[in-house]
Amino acid sequence: MDMIQQPASALDFRTTPENYKHWSISIEGPVARLIMAIDEDSPSAAGYELKLNSYDIGVDIELYDAVQRLRFEHPEVRVVVITSGIEGMFCAGANIRMLGLSSHSHKVNFCKFTNETRNSIEDASNFSRQTYISALNGTAAGGGYELALATEYLMLIDDGNAAVSLPEVPLLAVLPGTGGLTRIVDKRKVRRDLADVFCTVEEGMKGKRAVDWRLIDEMVPRSKFDARVTEKATELAVESDRPKGENGIRLERIERVEEDDVIRYPHVLVSLDRTARTATMEIQAPASDAPVDVVALKEEGAKFWPLAVIREIDDALLHLRFNEPTLGTLIIKTSGDGSRIAAYDDLLVANQDNWLVREILLYMQRTYKRLDVTSRTTFAFVEPGSCFVGMLADLLFAVDRSYMLDGQMDDRPAPEICLSELSFGALRMPNGLTRLETRFLGESDSLKNAHALVGQQLDAQAALDAGLITYAPDDIDWEDEIRLLLEERASFSPDALTGMEANLRFAGPETLETKIFGRLSAWQNWIFQRPNAAGESGALKLYGTGRRAVYERGRV
Amino acid sequence: MDMIQQPASALDFRTTPENYKHWSISIEGPVARLIMAIDEDSPSAAGYELKLNSYDIGVDIELYDAVQRLRFEHPEVRVVVITSGIEGMFCAGANIRMLGLSSHSHKVNFCKFTNETRNSIEDASNFSRQTYISALNGTAAGGGYELALATEYLMLIDDGNAAVSLPEVPLLAVLPGTGGLTRIVDKRKVRRDLADVFCTVEEGMKGKRAVDWRLIDEMVPRSKFDARVTEKATELAVESDRPKGENGIRLERIERVEEDDVIRYPHVLVSLDRTARTATMEIQAPASDAPVDVVALKEEGAKFWPLAVIREIDDALLHLRFNEPTLGTLIIKTSGDGSRIAAYDDLLVANQDNWLVREILLYMQRTYKRLDVTSRTTFAFVEPGSCFVGMLADLLFAVDRSYMLDGQMDDRPAPEICLSELSFGALRMPNGLTRLETRFLGESDSLKNAHALVGQQLDAQAALDAGLITYAPDDIDWEDEIRLLLEERASFSPDALTGMEANLRFAGPETLETKIFGRLSAWQNWIFQRPNAAGESGALKLYGTGRRAVYERGRV
Repeated sequence: MDMIQQPASALDFRTTPENYKHWSISIEGPVARLIMAIDEDSPSAAGYELKLNSYDIGVDIELYDAVQRLRFEHPEVRVVVITSGIEGMFCAGANIRMLGLSSHSHKVNFCKFTNETRNSIEDASNFSRQTYISALNGTAAGGGYELALATEYLMLIDDGNAAVSLPEVPLLAVLPGTGGLTRIVDKRKVRRDLADVFCTVEEGMKGKRAVDWRLIDEMVPRSKFDARVTEKATELAVESDRPKGENGIRLERIERVEEDDVIRYPHVLVSLDRTARTATMEIQAPASDAPVDVVALKEEGAKFWPLAVIREIDDALLHLRFNEPTLGTLIIKTSGDGSRIAAYDDLLVANQDNWLVREILLYMQRTYKRLDVTSRTTFAFVEPGSCFVGMLADLLFAVDRSYMLDGQMDDRPAPEICLSELSFGALRMPNGLTRLETRFLGESDSLKNAHALVGQQLDAQAALDAGLITYAPDDIDWEDEIRLLLEERASFSPDALTGMEANLRFAGPETLETKIFGRLSAWQNWIFQRPNAAGESGALKLYGTGRRAVYERGRV
Repeated sequence: MDMIQQPASALDFRTTPENYKHWSISIEGPVARLIMAIDEDSPSAAGYELKLNSYDIGVDIELYDAVQRLRFEHPEVRVVVITSGIEGMFCAGANIRMLGLSSHSHKVNFCKFTNETRNSIEDASNFSRQTYISALNGTAAGGGYELALATEYLMLIDDGNAAVSLPEVPLLAVLPGTGGLTRIVDKRKVRRDLADVFCTVEEGMKGKRAVDWRLIDEMVPRSKFDARVTEKATELAVESDRPKGENGIRLERIERVEEDDVIRYPHVLVSLDRTARTATMEIQAPASDAPVDVVALKEEGAKFWPLAVIREIDDALLHLRFNEPTLGTLIIKTSGDGSRIAAYDDLLVANQDNWLVREILLYMQRTYKRLDVTSRTTFAFVEPGSCFVGMLADLLFAVDRSYMLDGQMDDRPAPEICLSELSFGALRMPNGLTRLETRFLGESDSLKNAHALVGQQLDAQAALDAGLITYAPDDIDWEDEIRLLLEERASFSPDALTGMEANLRFAGPETLETKIFGRLSAWQNWIFQRPNAAGESGALKLYGTGRRAVYERGRV
């Protein structure tokens, strides 16, 4: 039955609005409408149709792209209204037949990506000040309602029929998989007993009760729906601090050349070793000096090195996640002349209030978060010729372990690293802390000390003393130590590593995001492989067959 | 292979030190030594031997009992030293052969109980001021080290051999299951990259590095070990506020009579309906007035109604969890004259500084937490003749939903509920909030309003208006509504319900406890059923056979 082990061809996360099959964007002044009209005949894999605005990974790839482009290409947009182009149905959620046909691995990765996209919608509302609201012109069921929950204001059409619902538990024996449970009790603060009721009512809720329980913000009569949506959007647009009279920058298609064991981007080189089961991502320093100011930065557009490199890292991470599941260890390296990076960092730090710089930093933050929640082991190797400086140095604190060569090797100069202010505020983990705050939870002096080192070139001993790297082998030990490390890691159970890493990476406070990735996802992964959901007589498998699922009754 | 689906006979959580097979307690002045010398020939089920101080549920039942008794029976004990009675080995952790033979359900329940016991150790250190420390006179591996992590100070003998380790990932393809991952990064604040290293080194760590990384607090030479342990214990004893010159109260054996579908305790009646798959716990009001003061309370000892009833609830919850896994819904009812309860509550509230009252309230809190983390649906039914008053009223906020009859039924008087101060501070959930704070996260006015209602008799409408109950059907609807509710709940997938409830119950902040139960446990449950651990070629199954596990290499 497991047909969608991997799609027939590799998933490609690059797209443009001109190529969308399922979404369209319509912009009027400060308000954009993001309209979902899913083409049921264009699923990402064979075996199912995307009926009733139900989605699969292909639909979400477009949504992800649209959210990104609205931020960068449309500084004038202050409010984004998500709505449906299909009569009477906002969105029916993830396609159930697709889930029933999918491998465990695809289900988990699909949920992770859709969660990241919903988080990016909240990130846009909260930090880009491009506020998302939902114009629910029909029923929002399951993942459809969860998508709406990621927006800041939910308006439901009062047509006697449309409702919001999370029918996963009663209907499918799985959980709402894109943050719904967490968002209703933590974001919308629905009382837990009412949430319990809501999540067990297949047909969902509407009307006054839905408003009273805080499941939606407003019911709007059909005749006034469009006018009221426009009114609300216009009202919210006033509150935004997004600029007026600025042009956006075009996110050009990311260039990528794939060879057998190498993926080449302009600034990122990914090497795949299928025997050792590793992927090595080498990030290259800028080839030219930083622009002198924000005006010059804007002229560079998507070619501005920090933005270009982050887009490539983002694409590479998604590619590896979906298309290379057996490469269990991701190695991060850097190369090139790091001396230029400091100027790029300085420009970003000095102009954090500029809308475009803000977008670039937020995108960097989101991409690094994708690394935080990756289900791969992550190592960084600091070798001669590397450039872990500033924004790239923060990657040393995102990985599970870092190794830095102590001294020279083969007459190549000893590597150095260099921190910038970006590691002390702009780049936060899902737990809300910077990576160095998380790293030094038990050592506030180390955090202060690290801050004092900003801008200084640190050799391996200095980095080790400051607690910034894990190990610093010298040239005699380096090769053996790295080889043994990779062999050992590859010998462990992939599942146990995923669980271990997920638990060690997020000390300290918890947020909506850590709850979704740390708790909700773990429960969902568990349920996704229980016979009651995924077995041959499980609810997910039997959905639509007319046969009732048969459940094992033991409570665990 | 799944032999330990359920032990041959039902597990009984009642024991006394005289019957311990694996532990002994030795008390000198303010310092108790809790000595683990596990009898390898006394496992809880057939098929394995408890070698090298490795434990199973039977060992942990004794530990749980010892921790409880030290609190109540020994007010003079201010420090508890956990140590081993076996040469060179503190504790090897959970018995691996037992885990390999266990059903998924037993593994999960076993981990949950051991986690609760370790949490109760921290609860004793932090709130009973009976501080636990570890005298690691030999290696502490896996669950053995996790037990030590639940104590506040770890001393490791320097004998050239003894180490601390979490070898689960490399050795068994599962996670350390009793909070180890969370406690190293969150409690001991071990740096995450060092934690990653530590958790992949089978043989563990010792010496200066173990101290530098905060894995232990102190290495002590063999020749000085006993003296140093005594010195440290004596030093910590001084800081405790436990009373001098007080006698403890004896925790008499809990009386329990089991019939086919009924379990009778003096104050709790549990009725089992195996067709409807429900267990109904009816808690009975006190039969006599509250004692007039703390002196009189102490004379009542373990018969003091709040303590007696909590002990019975605790035992009943554990019994149902392990011995009745298919009863998926737990219904809580109360009966009797509630007018007496207020006086008990007042006595407890007024004397919270008294060591015994403090113990009773902490025990109540721990027991209610067991309900919070139960993997059963929990409902409360407020019917005529019920007494949801004070400490029992808090149960209304622990359950997933509550139903209160609106008005009379069959000429029996309309039920009322009544809050006491206990719901506003003394009884906290694992997330650190009171149940009403969690319930009203989105409505601070409702919280204030509820506080103003303390001591007032509230009928169903008043309770509904105050947001204190979920539904208030009248006598015409009551029976149908309850019947449909129970039928519907029984028709859902048990796994999906467990996951849903675990996610809805803990809005708001996260703590070590919610991380352990919400996140760590969910990951562990997932891994426990992955083929890499539990399959016929999985590491857990093959341990000790000399055969190497074969892993699926996909990372999920």
